[in-house]
Amino acid sequence: MNKANLLYAQSGGVTAVINATAASVIEAARARADAVGRVLAARHGILGALDEDLIDTAPLSVVDLRRLAGTPGGAFGSCRFDLDPPEANRDQYDRLFAVLAAHDIGYFLYNGGNGSMDTVAKVSRAAAERGYPLVCVGVPKTVDNDLEGTDCSPGFGSAAKYAATSMLEAGLDLAAMTSRVGRAFVLEVMGRNAGWLAAATALAARNDDEPPHVILMPEVPFDEEAFLAVVRSTVSRLGYCAVTVSEGIRRADGSLLMEQDEDAKGHVQLGGAGQCIARLIHSRLGYKHHWAIPDYLQRAAGHLVSATDHAQARAVGQAAVEYALAGRDGVMAAIRRLADAPYRWDVAPVAVAAIANLERQVPRAFIRPDGLHVTDAARTYLRPLIEGEMPACFAGGLPDYPRFPLPGVPRKLAPYRP
Amino acid sequence: MNKANLLYAQSGGVTAVINATAASVIEAARARADAVGRVLAARHGILGALDEDLIDTAPLSVVDLRRLAGTPGGAFGSCRFDLDPPEANRDQYDRLFAVLAAHDIGYFLYNGGNGSMDTVAKVSRAAAERGYPLVCVGVPKTVDNDLEGTDCSPGFGSAAKYAATSMLEAGLDLAAMTSRVGRAFVLEVMGRNAGWLAAATALAARNDDEPPHVILMPEVPFDEEAFLAVVRSTVSRLGYCAVTVSEGIRRADGSLLMEQDEDAKGHVQLGGAGQCIARLIHSRLGYKHHWAIPDYLQRAAGHLVSATDHAQARAVGQAAVEYALAGRDGVMAAIRRLADAPYRWDVAPVAVAAIANLERQVPRAFIRPDGLHVTDAARTYLRPLIEGEMPACFAGGLPDYPRFPLPGVPRKLAPYRP
Repeated sequence: MNKANLLYAQSGGVTAVINATAASVIEAARARADAVGRVLAARHGILGALDEDLIDTAPLSVVDLRRLAGTPGGAFGSCRFDLDPPEANRDQYDRLFAVLAAHDIGYFLYNGGNGSMDTVAKVSRAAAERGYPLVCVGVPKTVDNDLEGTDCSPGFGSAAKYAATSMLEAGLDLAAMTSRVGRAFVLEVMGRNAGWLAAATALAARNDDEPPHVILMPEVPFDEEAFLAVVRSTVSRLGYCAVTVSEGIRRADGSLLMEQDEDAKGHVQLGGAGQCIARLIHSRLGYKHHWAIPDYLQRAAGHLVSATDHAQARAVGQAAVEYALAGRDGVMAAIRRLADAPYRWDVAPVAVAAIANLERQVPRAFIRPDGLHVTDAARTYLRPLIEGEMPACFAGGLPDYPRFPLPGVPRKLAPYRP
Repeated sequence: MNKANLLYAQSGGVTAVINATAASVIEAARARADAVGRVLAARHGILGALDEDLIDTAPLSVVDLRRLAGTPGGAFGSCRFDLDPPEANRDQYDRLFAVLAAHDIGYFLYNGGNGSMDTVAKVSRAAAERGYPLVCVGVPKTVDNDLEGTDCSPGFGSAAKYAATSMLEAGLDLAAMTSRVGRAFVLEVMGRNAGWLAAATALAARNDDEPPHVILMPEVPFDEEAFLAVVRSTVSRLGYCAVTVSEGIRRADGSLLMEQDEDAKGHVQLGGAGQCIARLIHSRLGYKHHWAIPDYLQRAAGHLVSATDHAQARAVGQAAVEYALAGRDGVMAAIRRLADAPYRWDVAPVAVAAIANLERQVPRAFIRPDGLHVTDAARTYLRPLIEGEMPACFAGGLPDYPRFPLPGVPRKLAPYRP
């Protein structure tokens, strides 16, 4: 009798530790060779499953997997693509299950954020309706930390560590210079609807005089006058002011502050909130202004990974394999916080149907009453997530990231023409 | 008889290793207690010398100095301020020498770039004209690497390591995603007139298919059509294209590509070349576009210092003290390259008068004939400068940078009213 094969795929924006999850999934599945046949990966997430673009992970050695676990980006390729609802596009699901059947897939692990958990729920439901024997498990990942059902999301801790380190270091630079007219620095971080990464930069400050002096989050409608008043008082006290802003901050009328720019398909491309805030400060207060936009750098900084985040990324991968083999269909491996200090956590399953497509924002208790900074409760939550460093492997002065050739599994079906 | 005191000051944009130079100066001067009295620092460079805003470094312990050497930013404060020519503003020099005399300064070490070496030359000349016994020595520092007379400048190697690491990591993120319309990523690095930092990102690629695929430097007039042709062919081959651009690139008519923005005093604030290039790609080729602007982050990344750069930052500090005590007035401690591989270097004096205010650009031999990338000669020059890592000290998940209280030396003169 053939043992069922396992299909793993990565989805959404990648992170510094999603490959740690991938390595952990592969290792855990190999350790259960009694129950799992081949461990395959779909190239570019669910798109690869539809296209029958599959990778056999068997050639990856134990050493390869260890190196993979320390490499940012998504080794198997990711995508931004949502399946249609099963009832709306029967062809799409016919194709998906034809591919799963052709390759004897009995376990499907999808590693992503809110949208990916929706994909897990849809595939799970469609499999049940068709009577296809499949166990679908979600594996969390997002630098935005906006997944419901889990205390935090793998990828966030490392991005938060990068953002806080960046604010700390840029703040030292800012403090060193002097100007008769005052100086402002704005750091724009990711976060369309949730200010978690912006909030995390608060960890850079040991007291109210240290950067960041203001944190602007999407949870709080932008109040220009209140903001400028704090910037002005900070500059009059210190000579400079450092501001963190989430890319997606909005005015009270709901309009985005940044300059908008639509791509060919009408998707809004975010970016520019940092520049807008810096220019606002300059035009209204006359200060010298600088802004930094780390963009991809903040979610790809494998050289500055949080050891806590890395451990959690591995743990959810391993738990997902355990859930799959235990037949726990339609769950996500979630992180539970057991204690703040010393920080303790474990992993437990939550039903994906209950959390798919939700967005967890920064709660009111984490936001200072004036809406322009965070509270100690936020710091208590955030601090352990950035803690611990990973021994970095460098070669020639740069992180030594492997790039593996990942040849595809021979196709068995005709090309997919949606 | 009183031994002469030594005055050290930091000038211009700070770096990840300028404090390593400061610590080295202080340590070297202390080791020569036979010849040097107190070791003072001027707060905010030459401005502190004019304002009589001086710091006594004596309270800094051996441990403090070791920690200082691992901290980015400018611990004593920096400035962007040029002295007037001695003949044009006699009052300014009267004041400067009154402060130097009041505090028994016999050695003046100025740590900066092109403009700072001009300050060294001016102060040296003025001292000679006045018969004031002063030895002036320049200590190099600039992330731009545009100082003449030295093979490289402390600060550059660490910024180059940061920029190349950022391109490497963002490139892995870029490669992981997929898009039917093609994708472009633009990294904007510092460099108003010299493309050294942009060139250094070439070290991230092991072959022509790896990011960065294009490097735009100020040395080469921007040719829109030639640039877009390479971007288009790269995307058709790989699906994505990564571009590094210096903030200061210009068109053939000499105009800056970026959006300009003048401050209250008419100084052009640079920034925006990355955004302009990204939007150009999007509007002309229709690709999805992202851009990153590390800004201060690239020159303040103490967590990612080049060990080579750090060693050179310390070496020039120590050499500058030796030159001062040997009476070598008007020289800068320059780095000489003795061999490429294995890399060997030493420090030698060069006359500041010969190099002040010059800007060293990337030579033609380092730029690919089409002007859109670098040559192997550039890689051979650049590689050793980013090599080696420093053991990082973290606390609570963040680099453990000390912030020392640095009380001022009691003033002896009336306030300066220029």
